[in-house]
Amino acid sequence: MRSGADQYGLIEDAALVLAGGKIAWIGAQAHLPGDYAALPVRDMGGRLLTPALIDCHTHVIHGGNRAAEFQMRLRGASYEEVARAGGGIVSTVTATRRASEDDLVAAALPYVDAMISEGVAVIEIKSGYGLEQDTELRMLRAARRIGQLRPVLVRTSYLAAHAVPAEYKGRADAYIDQVCIPALHAAHAERLVDAVDGFCEGIAFSPVQIERVFQAARSLGLPVKLHAEQLSNLGGAALAARYGAMSADHLEYLDEAGVVAMAAAGTVAVILPGAFYTLRETHMPPIDLLRKYAVPMAVATDMNPGSSPMTSLLLAMNMACTLFRMTPAEALAGATTHAARALGLTDRGTLASGQIADLAVWNCGHPAELAYRIGFNPLHQRIIGGVL
Amino acid sequence: MRSGADQYGLIEDAALVLAGGKIAWIGAQAHLPGDYAALPVRDMGGRLLTPALIDCHTHVIHGGNRAAEFQMRLRGASYEEVARAGGGIVSTVTATRRASEDDLVAAALPYVDAMISEGVAVIEIKSGYGLEQDTELRMLRAARRIGQLRPVLVRTSYLAAHAVPAEYKGRADAYIDQVCIPALHAAHAERLVDAVDGFCEGIAFSPVQIERVFQAARSLGLPVKLHAEQLSNLGGAALAARYGAMSADHLEYLDEAGVVAMAAAGTVAVILPGAFYTLRETHMPPIDLLRKYAVPMAVATDMNPGSSPMTSLLLAMNMACTLFRMTPAEALAGATTHAARALGLTDRGTLASGQIADLAVWNCGHPAELAYRIGFNPLHQRIIGGVL
Ligand SMILES: [Zn+2]
Ligand SMILES: [Zn+2]
Repeated sequence: MRSGADQYGLIEDAALVLAGGKIAWIGAQAHLPGDYAALPVRDMGGRLLTPALIDCHTHVIHGGNRAAEFQMRLRGASYEEVARAGGGIVSTVTATRRASEDDLVAAALPYVDAMISEGVAVIEIKSGYGLEQDTELRMLRAARRIGQLRPVLVRTSYLAAHAVPAEYKGRADAYIDQVCIPALHAAHAERLVDAVDGFCEGIAFSPVQIERVFQAARSLGLPVKLHAEQLSNLGGAALAARYGAMSADHLEYLDEAGVVAMAAAGTVAVILPGAFYTLRETHMPPIDLLRKYAVPMAVATDMNPGSSPMTSLLLAMNMACTLFRMTPAEALAGATTHAARALGLTDRGTLASGQIADLAVWNCGHPAELAYRIGFNPLHQRIIGGVL
Repeated sequence: MRSGADQYGLIEDAALVLAGGKIAWIGAQAHLPGDYAALPVRDMGGRLLTPALIDCHTHVIHGGNRAAEFQMRLRGASYEEVARAGGGIVSTVTATRRASEDDLVAAALPYVDAMISEGVAVIEIKSGYGLEQDTELRMLRAARRIGQLRPVLVRTSYLAAHAVPAEYKGRADAYIDQVCIPALHAAHAERLVDAVDGFCEGIAFSPVQIERVFQAARSLGLPVKLHAEQLSNLGGAALAARYGAMSADHLEYLDEAGVVAMAAAGTVAVILPGAFYTLRETHMPPIDLLRKYAVPMAVATDMNPGSSPMTSLLLAMNMACTLFRMTPAEALAGATTHAARALGLTDRGTLASGQIADLAVWNCGHPAELAYRIGFNPLHQRIIGGVL
């Protein structure tokens, strides 16, 4: 995965040397330096070895689920009827506010375990269903606890700028000033925030409002990322790029100017086909333009109870290929190398000496099989920090 | 699942009595007859209990995989280039002909195990990648072996009328006469055939050719089913109905006359969203018409290496809802009650006294969750033949 774009950098008959939790050497077995000859050997049986997977965009911490709403809509209910029945993000906010930290952790663990079982070693988890200080911080504490309870690195994103809560209806600016920014300071004081995120959209926050959140993040020295151009083009990706964002995510309505801005800033494009699939969206993200300007593309589950109740990163890789015509190599880089970059992690996501030895061993003859199969898990073994 | 259409027949606080591998009684716990009071009790902890799932359309026995072809197409190769590189069904036929019975079994087991892990208790398996007698029979023997090696009921379908092999190119009638029908007799003599299937399509066999296969099936007393109206409307479903087919499958281009014929014959419509998804088809099967005429709808994976390398029946249920607007209750009936009927099984697929006790216990609060989640397996326990 060290090569760019549509290449695996596959090494046949490879050897990989582990030392101190890191990769000490990798290459063709025939070229293994003599110094390593005396080390104990573990034969992986000709299996495929890749970096462990990284899910760089999830909302896996949340209260309740939206199965009833899913069913209502399929029985013909309009969005209005769903809303009147208490559906939509409001229902998730209500359930999340009611949930204790323990509740949130217990609800998320089965999904986190499903991700781990597919070779995931890093999970990004966002807040954003509290929309008031206590619950936003409780979500982030629950996210940190996941990282203590499971052998997985958790990276948190503070996403109070996710939706305007009912109590601030029509007063989005007041919500930014009175809740979003003060609660960010409180969360940062508890060291709960690895990045600051927002949702820039007609139904959420304007670029001007998002920029105020980004300025607060900058004042605290926190990196930013943004849900941008999912349903319309508000120039969110270019705004994010101006703040040196690690990533802009979704991007179905991204235009060439936005792509150029992202390329110049080194902002990763996080592609989320699960939401596209669930919402039956038809407007595809501009994959060809992202390729043309060499914007790194990551792929993630967007695991959330409304628009993407999906826990399988392998399936997200398949959807990125089937729905968006990404190549299997791009999908794999998207769930490893570029996902690491979307989280600001430089010490994992590739197989190279000096990298943390977070590895996945697969029952696959060829890496293209990872994106080719649908709803199948070929993982043989996950290796975390070099521990076999 | 005893009620029709969009209803679960859900019983809250239910009790189910097992005896001799069958369901002896089911109902509200409050109404449990006194005769059963002394039986040992297993508390399922408030979980959801459904019939075990039934995957009624798979090609899980096959040689090789088509990941390289998947990648080629995503790298921009035309269908011609893929064909020149030996891709398409020809590559699967070549790999299957080369594979021994042991090879075929070993290759299929991981996929069968994945299905079982999601609560599947019955799997239909088709031949159709041999296209000559030895390999067709070897595929069916491998299918029977799967049923011996794993706690799953296997139902076989003889599908030599799947494609015209290269050696009979342009001579489909001769293939039917010289291979398809004689090999059916041979397979039936070995008791390898539970049903006879075909592919009625411009790229496969005409209705007249399929009818000759159906006549051979009828002469042997074997039930029929058909891949019909997947890519165009040749009237295959009506033909199948005329032969009292257990099911007609795919049906994207089915018209009202075909629906009416299926309704009159009691033929199940097997809905296969995995192939629709993978082929990026846009023409949907006529779900509303199937509802209007009360044609039972089953849902299956169509697990095959080309157009649906999908092993998750739960994911097929989600796709049936998301892509085809079936309801979660229809999807669940489609993977239980109606799937049983598509295989001619009357002793399973519902929760009713006298039925075989093949059950699935789920970590779900409501049955709609089964189709709502994407790429997640909430199975707590599978119970086969009443064995806890
Ligand atoms: Zn999101
Ligand atoms: Zn088929």
